[in-house]
Amino acid sequence: MNLIQDTLKGNRRAIARLISHIEDEVPGAREALAALYPHTGRAYIVGVTGAPGTGKSTLVNELAKAYRRWNPPRTVGVIAVDPTSPFSGGAILGDRIRMRDLAGDAGIFVRSMATRGSLGGLARATADAIKVLDAAGYEMIFVETVGAGQAEVDIAKTAYTTIVVEAPGLGDEIQALKAGIMEIADIFAVNKADREGADHTVTAIQMMLDLNHASHVGGQALRRGSGQALRLSGQVWRPPVCKTIAVRGEGVPDLVQAIEAHAAFLRESGLFGQRERERVAAEFEHLLREQLMRQFVSRIAPEQWDELIERMVRREVDPYTAAEMLLRGR
Amino acid sequence: MNLIQDTLKGNRRAIARLISHIEDEVPGAREALAALYPHTGRAYIVGVTGAPGTGKSTLVNELAKAYRRWNPPRTVGVIAVDPTSPFSGGAILGDRIRMRDLAGDAGIFVRSMATRGSLGGLARATADAIKVLDAAGYEMIFVETVGAGQAEVDIAKTAYTTIVVEAPGLGDEIQALKAGIMEIADIFAVNKADREGADHTVTAIQMMLDLNHASHVGGQALRRGSGQALRLSGQVWRPPVCKTIAVRGEGVPDLVQAIEAHAAFLRESGLFGQRERERVAAEFEHLLREQLMRQFVSRIAPEQWDELIERMVRREVDPYTAAEMLLRGR
Repeated sequence: MNLIQDTLKGNRRAIARLISHIEDEVPGAREALAALYPHTGRAYIVGVTGAPGTGKSTLVNELAKAYRRWNPPRTVGVIAVDPTSPFSGGAILGDRIRMRDLAGDAGIFVRSMATRGSLGGLARATADAIKVLDAAGYEMIFVETVGAGQAEVDIAKTAYTTIVVEAPGLGDEIQALKAGIMEIADIFAVNKADREGADHTVTAIQMMLDLNHASHVGGQALRRGSGQALRLSGQVWRPPVCKTIAVRGEGVPDLVQAIEAHAAFLRESGLFGQRERERVAAEFEHLLREQLMRQFVSRIAPEQWDELIERMVRREVDPYTAAEMLLRGR
Repeated sequence: MNLIQDTLKGNRRAIARLISHIEDEVPGAREALAALYPHTGRAYIVGVTGAPGTGKSTLVNELAKAYRRWNPPRTVGVIAVDPTSPFSGGAILGDRIRMRDLAGDAGIFVRSMATRGSLGGLARATADAIKVLDAAGYEMIFVETVGAGQAEVDIAKTAYTTIVVEAPGLGDEIQALKAGIMEIADIFAVNKADREGADHTVTAIQMMLDLNHASHVGGQALRRGSGQALRLSGQVWRPPVCKTIAVRGEGVPDLVQAIEAHAAFLRESGLFGQRERERVAAEFEHLLREQLMRQFVSRIAPEQWDELIERMVRREVDPYTAAEMLLRGR
């Protein structure tokens, strides 16, 4: 089995194995990714994020099915990132449920990602898995993350279009969450829209968008640090708010239209190229940071490291001075 | 106003200003922290985490009040970390609500943290704010984070005792979340315990603890990579599960007892010193990584950087090879 050639041909076993190698940091995985890299850049990457209980997974499944029914049908890769499950368990369970729902369609590839080693590695492994599916020819790639916070911001850096999923009645804190989510959302989906309070949730999001709109001029302005470019181009994207009931597939066609509209907006406004550059730069920075630290630490004797930590524990030296000492002493 | 001297005296305005300087990365803030460092290491740090809607903030407020009523009373610092609100807004709102509830008690200091610049900076700023409150003499420091995922793991590295807050009826995904949360929890609080399904949530946690117990021998074993030490010492900590109704203060005394029991366990088993070393090492690694990257990037000409990114966007070079080129070219 030639992992690189077979992945390029779309062989599912090769794809699955290569992603496992990436997760496990098997020697040679990076070389394989380097070889695949020229074949990437064709997939359209959509991030889907939101709090637990919003029904993200079901929604992503429905989106996958909708793109399979598209004319012409598109192939779909789904990467479910579970940063809350560093030591496996959840991810495998999730995959099984998924498989049952989407089984039998060779045009869909589903993969859950959980860290096996360091947690910092999850973002990188996810970025690499995207590249594998991209090189394997999947046209739409959905990256789904559980939870709020850093994961959402990371996903926003990874995707061209980011969907934030909300659901009615998840508690008061949701309101506070929105302040931060506002900056990363290209599209809002209010899922479980048959529940009480759905219209209230939609109204709340619209109100916050009204407030934000004036200052941001486009949902991505602040976050991308590119408000200037957006303003100069005169192009404005106001995130649409779609009501969905994923378990019944309701509202999903509208959500697909919203994704397509955002993709067209990015391309027509010239912002697509900018977003791609930012995507690549963010990923590269992450990689560089990791390599740099690895290289640096490998040059420090373990006894020197332990001694330094002990001195900090005893409060004989502070971390800032210690870092300076190490960095100067190279 | 001498920020260092006044902070050591417990002056609230000095503390608040110093934390703002840390957030804003004002020149001199690091020097101030270095000067404060010998005065740290006395506070007991408790992490409180959980999904949105679990009522964490109310619970932390009640814990703060409980420690103020302790005999003898302990001073309390509260740091509310909101990684979902990178561009402010939420944090300020949260502070105001907090202030109203805890106002008038000079023995409590409440501070919300949100990133003003890079998101990677939030973990560091939080660690630094803990040091400021520690040096200022606050005896108990509660660090509260919204959300799931990386933030939880970071908080686990920052705290001696980590409380994971759950609430009944937050959706099916909670179950999946628990797989990952299990490793960082020293104590579980099932809040809103008057809601339907509370007993079910408690049972579900207990069952997962039963499953985990055999393999972990102590909730921290796998996460800390210290399973061996725990086993050798013969000491085992099984995370207790406390039912609370924070809005009425119910169950809070039991939760306080659980915190004190865990603190005693860490001290008596000798694991406290180990946890402190891990805390210091994790923080130092984070700092070093940041400094290293800063130093490295400052030596690269902006044109060279942009050119490299462009070449990656055009798929002429892959990120792994590009990183190697940069690292070798120093």
